[in-house]
Amino acid sequence: MKRTTSAAELLLPVSRNRGRSMHEQVEQALRSAIQTGRLKAGFALPSTRALAEDLGMSRGVVVLAYEQLLAEGYLTATRGSATRVASIRQAVSAAAAPIDAETTPTYDFRPSSPDLTTFPRRAWLSSLRRVLASSPNAIFAYPDPAGALRTREALSGYLNRTRGTLAQPGRIVMCNGFAQGLRLVCAVLRERGVKTVAVEDPGHAGQRADINSMGLGTHAVRVDERGIDVARLTALKADAVLLTPAHQFPTGVVLSPDRRKALLDWASRHRVWVLEDDYDAEFRYDRGPVGALQGLAEDRVIYLGSASKTLAPGLRLGWIVSPAELVDRLALAKLHADHGSPTVDQLAFADFIERGELDRHLRKARHVYRRRRDAAVEALRRHLPSLKISGVAAGLHLMLTLPPGLGEAPLEEAASLDSLRIYGLRAHRKRPGGGALLLGYGSLTEARIEAGISLLAAIIRKGPSSSRRSVPTRSTVWDPIERSLKERIAASRPRGRTYLRGN
Amino acid sequence: MKRTTSAAELLLPVSRNRGRSMHEQVEQALRSAIQTGRLKAGFALPSTRALAEDLGMSRGVVVLAYEQLLAEGYLTATRGSATRVASIRQAVSAAAAPIDAETTPTYDFRPSSPDLTTFPRRAWLSSLRRVLASSPNAIFAYPDPAGALRTREALSGYLNRTRGTLAQPGRIVMCNGFAQGLRLVCAVLRERGVKTVAVEDPGHAGQRADINSMGLGTHAVRVDERGIDVARLTALKADAVLLTPAHQFPTGVVLSPDRRKALLDWASRHRVWVLEDDYDAEFRYDRGPVGALQGLAEDRVIYLGSASKTLAPGLRLGWIVSPAELVDRLALAKLHADHGSPTVDQLAFADFIERGELDRHLRKARHVYRRRRDAAVEALRRHLPSLKISGVAAGLHLMLTLPPGLGEAPLEEAASLDSLRIYGLRAHRKRPGGGALLLGYGSLTEARIEAGISLLAAIIRKGPSSSRRSVPTRSTVWDPIERSLKERIAASRPRGRTYLRGN
Repeated sequence: MKRTTSAAELLLPVSRNRGRSMHEQVEQALRSAIQTGRLKAGFALPSTRALAEDLGMSRGVVVLAYEQLLAEGYLTATRGSATRVASIRQAVSAAAAPIDAETTPTYDFRPSSPDLTTFPRRAWLSSLRRVLASSPNAIFAYPDPAGALRTREALSGYLNRTRGTLAQPGRIVMCNGFAQGLRLVCAVLRERGVKTVAVEDPGHAGQRADINSMGLGTHAVRVDERGIDVARLTALKADAVLLTPAHQFPTGVVLSPDRRKALLDWASRHRVWVLEDDYDAEFRYDRGPVGALQGLAEDRVIYLGSASKTLAPGLRLGWIVSPAELVDRLALAKLHADHGSPTVDQLAFADFIERGELDRHLRKARHVYRRRRDAAVEALRRHLPSLKISGVAAGLHLMLTLPPGLGEAPLEEAASLDSLRIYGLRAHRKRPGGGALLLGYGSLTEARIEAGISLLAAIIRKGPSSSRRSVPTRSTVWDPIERSLKERIAASRPRGRTYLRGN
Repeated sequence: MKRTTSAAELLLPVSRNRGRSMHEQVEQALRSAIQTGRLKAGFALPSTRALAEDLGMSRGVVVLAYEQLLAEGYLTATRGSATRVASIRQAVSAAAAPIDAETTPTYDFRPSSPDLTTFPRRAWLSSLRRVLASSPNAIFAYPDPAGALRTREALSGYLNRTRGTLAQPGRIVMCNGFAQGLRLVCAVLRERGVKTVAVEDPGHAGQRADINSMGLGTHAVRVDERGIDVARLTALKADAVLLTPAHQFPTGVVLSPDRRKALLDWASRHRVWVLEDDYDAEFRYDRGPVGALQGLAEDRVIYLGSASKTLAPGLRLGWIVSPAELVDRLALAKLHADHGSPTVDQLAFADFIERGELDRHLRKARHVYRRRRDAAVEALRRHLPSLKISGVAAGLHLMLTLPPGLGEAPLEEAASLDSLRIYGLRAHRKRPGGGALLLGYGSLTEARIEAGISLLAAIIRKGPSSSRRSVPTRSTVWDPIERSLKERIAASRPRGRTYLRGN
């Protein structure tokens, strides 16, 4: 395989005057060259030294960019051989980002990650056992595309009780997680003539992309401390709106009562479909539950939920509670997509709900997350008392507003040198705005949260730019014992397959 | 709700000179009015007496049409109330047709139905238990969109050993059954500029529709006793071809060695993608295994398989073995579709294969199916010695050629009066051709096969038209004990929900 040695040949658009760090620019240029297929799988990259010389920058910058892309799965490296472009699938796997203590940085504040170590394996297995022992043979036949009736019954009871929905079994369509649900809804709305879906800004970047990929436009509407700006929303010509009213993603705010009312009045008057993403409402700490919009307007609201936060994303259990008008089309779309979701899993979920196991698990999980939330708030107050935190009353993450002049990207970069992964708000912004970090605490222990935030505070205090000049060594781990453990684990497995292991 | 009493108002296009039975015409007219939404859910149909008078036909004809549509789920009926149009979802569920002894006719010769009563519940539960007991927490995270590596490894070993494939774990994408796999393949081929997929004629009607719904054209190519007519195929301008070389669906023929060679030569010369549907090749009785085409041309053949025939459709386990060129795009398409299939199920399948449970189950199942195949062939030779049977060497169904003048539709109709469900070939034909029945024996006991075929022979001997004049009573069941049992089961559950129960 030919080994390129020139940056010109790689066509990397890197500039010193772009307002982004050099490291980030190199990283982004390479990432997009790989994503678009310009750099193909197996392609050997120039050495870090050669590329750095060629670009006229320090070698450390290039090392950092390569290491980030290795971690993301875009590149692969074997000891003693060139760094190469990985197959897209590896990158895809990295994007899916399994939360596994072995493969993540020491302190990974990924937002909305649930704690997978507390998955109730024994109770789940009991549910599987009961289903396999007692169900008729029909469970092995082609599924009901709308989902197993028993599951839709159990789920509607659960949602009506805990989320204030008005769900009926006959209006539920089970699907493989939220993502498939959103696609099915988009397909059906498109059939019905919908052209544009209004979304929140900031709002989930991946969902915006998913809606666009289904052939619908998006229109980003500003979110403030009271949720989506309904006055602006209602001034638009949108046929549908996707929002997170109970706990806005990513800001964590709750849609205010007057806006809820104004939104539903408008939607009902103009026959606008309201897509309600109720992604983590089960976790609330200091306030009463915020009921689902669906309970106020069952004929306008398309409610989407999943077990990805309450149990585990790996189960791929999601659901749509649909207005009567759309439910048959959604079931038909699901039939076409994959002939229905696996029946045994759905029935195990029904059994799990019916026996109170879901409530039991959520009580425990809520307790764990509340302590983690408290630890995060406490650590932030102690180490970074002047910075504003918000969205703490619910969910699995909070938002930390950065002071003006402190950029998200340089901070992320500096933190990564200390095996600390933090997430800037900008990925989820459509329009530019003030800097902020999203700190997910769901999958970190209290000690880890405290140590990670202490580390973050130290980086912020000394200013991220000072550390950028140092030679980057991604393995600078805070705890030397942990570090040696990590290195041993890393040495025991082939690189570049990191994200494909273990499952 | 308004009760319509006039056929004119229903706009049923029924004619005495259409070459189809009156019953079938009424049934089809109503079915399509419901499918297209002209008759909406909840709409009250006229009484059978009123509609029959209005159409100038015997009431029995209308009763039969209503009962068929009730069975298919298009209509619902409650004792003492009007027959109404069901919601599409119920119809959809009926289309998915769970194979459950309680809800099917006494003798249902549905092709390709596996026997669900022999599902190895205990061994499957053991696999689930081992996976939940021993896997890392990463199994609960977002899945690898291509599928769990361990499953792809186990599956590639199994396929290479039993199907003669050249599968590598890195070229497998796991999906939710064959249907999703075909959609993913169509999406990726479309990206690559493919416009038309050649399909077999006769060939699977549902697959043709799926390909069309993904925005690709189809071109039907004649199948004869040696499989798809490769000379005709190669004369086309198709960019891809979908075929069932090991056991053609529905005729049961095997693609002849010279045609296999010619097909692959042509595909390789013109860079045509070959989609290989290997749907029931595990079940063969009197001949050696026919290896997969994929093993001869791993860079041209996109191999699609599932556990729907070997284990159960309800598991929704399917896979694609892809040429290197397409595998990353397929994984990306799967990521977009639903973020990957449930991990625990995939790992249970891996464990099930690794421990030899799949081989054990298939050995048993093959034995059961061979005896059923023998019973079917034996009964046909005894009761209908003059009719040609074909496709008996493998699979879960055979084909019975009807003598000229004996129509499939009147035969199906007459059989249904005796709770015998048979399937004409015409549903899978693109071009007209001689009449034939597809007789699936996979889910029927030997006694049931013998009795069903004896019944079929009686109907054929007396001529289906003679029975058409009699008052139709769908519950005329051959065995009086069975009949009373069926009636008790039927009475114990609400009608119109038949297909939604039990799972």
